[in-house]
Amino acid sequence: MDTASACAEGTDSELAFDVFARTCPSREILEHVTGRWGSLTVGALREGPCRFNELRRRVEGVSEKMLSQTLHALERDGIVHREAQPTNPPRVDYELTPLGVEVADRLLALIHFLEGSMPEVLAARGAYDGTRGAR
Amino acid sequence: MDTASACAEGTDSELAFDVFARTCPSREILEHVTGRWGSLTVGALREGPCRFNELRRRVEGVSEKMLSQTLHALERDGIVHREAQPTNPPRVDYELTPLGVEVADRLLALIHFLEGSMPEVLAARGAYDGTRGAR
Repeated sequence: MDTASACAEGTDSELAFDVFARTCPSREILEHVTGRWGSLTVGALREGPCRFNELRRRVEGVSEKMLSQTLHALERDGIVHREAQPTNPPRVDYELTPLGVEVADRLLALIHFLEGSMPEVLAARGAYDGTRGAR
Repeated sequence: MDTASACAEGTDSELAFDVFARTCPSREILEHVTGRWGSLTVGALREGPCRFNELRRRVEGVSEKMLSQTLHALERDGIVHREAQPTNPPRVDYELTPLGVEVADRLLALIHFLEGSMPEVLAARGAYDGTRGAR
């Protein structure tokens, strides 16, 4: 099957995007939202508008450059809104758009489920490493 | 605040894992599940057990090496079960564990929402690029 045709061509004559198709632009937005820093940035902004340095402290370990790139990509995708206040010195706030809030709620449902499943994940890792060691 | 103390130390004397803490192991499982290939692999396996080469065709663009690494990490985390049949030639099936199914359902809720939001995302990108060009 042609990869391009698998994307943006659905049944019932409506557009259908498919992240499994290599060339579909929905794969890119999935990567922006779930990437190493994208997911934590979107999750942190669900708590409310935030300035760059506040956000950088909340998303522990992110560099200034990576947070800046992450915010730009999310702003372009319509997930994050950047609001520059005409003050001196200028104050810039970042916040989720309505679309961003919907994305964040689904992402946080996954994040909270994973956090809550950590005892099960750590037990699985212990069992896996034990079995491999015994072979 | 100490980063290690922010993880696995919650209120009400129960364990709490926090992906925002740099050293928390929940950050690693989030990366395995939402990584470039992890998310597509988990999503594809939600349709049912799958052999390696079937999975490789479904997750368009993944290399043999990356799919193998992705499956090993997910198996160790207790998300994917690997079942080797005692046939000749040996047949290996991969399937989601019950925990993996729960993770996949939350991930697919996010993926389907993003796929459905693509017209809005593409419009936002067009507006963003237009504004930047006009400056």
